[in-house]
Amino acid sequence: MFIADLPAPPLLLDAETLEDFIRAAFPEHDVSLAVTALAPGRLRLRQPIASGHLRPGETISGPTLMTLSDTAMYLLVLAHIGLEPMAVTSHLSMDFMRRASGAVLLADAALLRVGRRNAVGHVLLRVEGDDAPVAAAQVTYALPPRA
Amino acid sequence: MFIADLPAPPLLLDAETLEDFIRAAFPEHDVSLAVTALAPGRLRLRQPIASGHLRPGETISGPTLMTLSDTAMYLLVLAHIGLEPMAVTSHLSMDFMRRASGAVLLADAALLRVGRRNAVGHVLLRVEGDDAPVAAAQVTYALPPRA
Amino acid sequence: MFIADLPAPPLLLDAETLEDFIRAAFPEHDVSLAVTALAPGRLRLRQPIASGHLRPGETISGPTLMTLSDTAMYLLVLAHIGLEPMAVTSHLSMDFMRRASGAVLLADAALLRVGRRNAVGHVLLRVEGDDAPVAAAQVTYALPPRA
Amino acid sequence: MFIADLPAPPLLLDAETLEDFIRAAFPEHDVSLAVTALAPGRLRLRQPIASGHLRPGETISGPTLMTLSDTAMYLLVLAHIGLEPMAVTSHLSMDFMRRASGAVLLADAALLRVGRRNAVGHVLLRVEGDDAPVAAAQVTYALPPRA
Repeated sequence: MFIADLPAPPLLLDAETLEDFIRAAFPEHDVSLAVTALAPGRLRLRQPIASGHLRPGETISGPTLMTLSDTAMYLLVLAHIGLEPMAVTSHLSMDFMRRASGAVLLADAALLRVGRRNAVGHVLLRVEGDDAPVAAAQVTYALPPRA
Repeated sequence: MFIADLPAPPLLLDAETLEDFIRAAFPEHDVSLAVTALAPGRLRLRQPIASGHLRPGETISGPTLMTLSDTAMYLLVLAHIGLEPMAVTSHLSMDFMRRASGAVLLADAALLRVGRRNAVGHVLLRVEGDDAPVAAAQVTYALPPRA
Repeated sequence: MFIADLPAPPLLLDAETLEDFIRAAFPEHDVSLAVTALAPGRLRLRQPIASGHLRPGETISGPTLMTLSDTAMYLLVLAHIGLEPMAVTSHLSMDFMRRASGAVLLADAALLRVGRRNAVGHVLLRVEGDDAPVAAAQVTYALPPRA
Repeated sequence: MFIADLPAPPLLLDAETLEDFIRAAFPEHDVSLAVTALAPGRLRLRQPIASGHLRPGETISGPTLMTLSDTAMYLLVLAHIGLEPMAVTSHLSMDFMRRASGAVLLADAALLRVGRRNAVGHVLLRVEGDDAPVAAAQVTYALPPRA
């Protein structure tokens, strides 16, 4: 059984609501971020790469990869618990596997568990047009008390 | 694209060879460990639980979960590079998500990358008969120079 | 400011109480484990190495390193919150840095934070008689509700 | 033995060289980043916080914390191996321990190991004026072949 086979909890929000939320909450974020797939337990986030995301040699920077992973997991968690701005990352562990270079970065996030106090997920990053993943992250969010 | 969809490199060894190798290399290991599934990029390791694997309350111990993850990833790497006893774990990061209790522990390991110097994989652990994962690990092996 | 300079919360238990507790709770554990140093925020755990801890080539096994780190952090947390068997590891991330070989393994654990719901610590492992660390871990414990 | 007590390899570069390098290599980086302490095996990086580093509630964002950790470790590695732009992060694991809020963020980075192929370090983050750490990271850099 792999991550994609895990039983998935139901969605509470749709992609448009998530995009509106992140644009309102983080006005300095790149407005070109898009949720291009959303299903129970799964979310894809798409980020066009701009010059500020690059380090020398046209390599997409590590912070860009970590930020997109964290944002993808944040939106995936919110999609399952509702708009809780106070959900905060408590752990992020990322393996950088290949040099990332390309015009668009994709993050596929999958929920491993949503509990009362925490949510844990996995994120796989790749460049659009290439199946080989450039990085993989495991991310934990601490959740606020809910009704 | 999730882990199970990743392009997979070809296998060099079969399950029986892997089991024989680990029994010869680690004679103190539990001989009941079995490779119950093996495909390009994927391996399942099955471990019957004994009293030495438990902590108070019949909970399968953290070290048991970490050890099975590490062993599953070791065998999966060897299956793709050949019998290289000098492959060594360089990083293991594990999220413990639920209390683990049951008679048999299963580890599903998937390769994210096999490079020249490193291999990275993901391992999902669960108890036989229950789909909810109890723990998830990301593991890196450092590989010896190869021909 | 490095880990050793962090402000430290007060101790609630002494080394003997911790050793008695772990021997009673984990009767299958190696009885030779000893808490050889304990101060606010700091604990050293000492483990004589036996044949069951070794992999081929007289290398101390990865599971031995992970288990000692986890146990050292468990005892350090209990020393600061009292005997709470229900404190459980929620995350362990370990970097294996050098081959470990020797008669005695030492784990120096330091608390980074004890909160209401979690405790986070760092563990540095080395072989007695050699200052170069063989592995380093960051460990999170989930804490049960307390009075 | 804690991280601050580890034997330290000699420095090859000084703080000014490191600051010049990062400003030339990353012209989009905040020019206010400063190396305020440098000794064998240790480096402190100081970052004044601007509005782009904040998320709602005046909280310093997770990506800001991860980026500063990664940059501090990069400069610490270069200080010990020379100006090798091709050193790249291979793993970063971060525990977020407290809400971070304040005018200046400090990263204290310590080397755990510099080998031929990898360097491993630990980074502790806090807000200037408060001793309690807000986050802790363990970071691995893959090193290019060197003479």
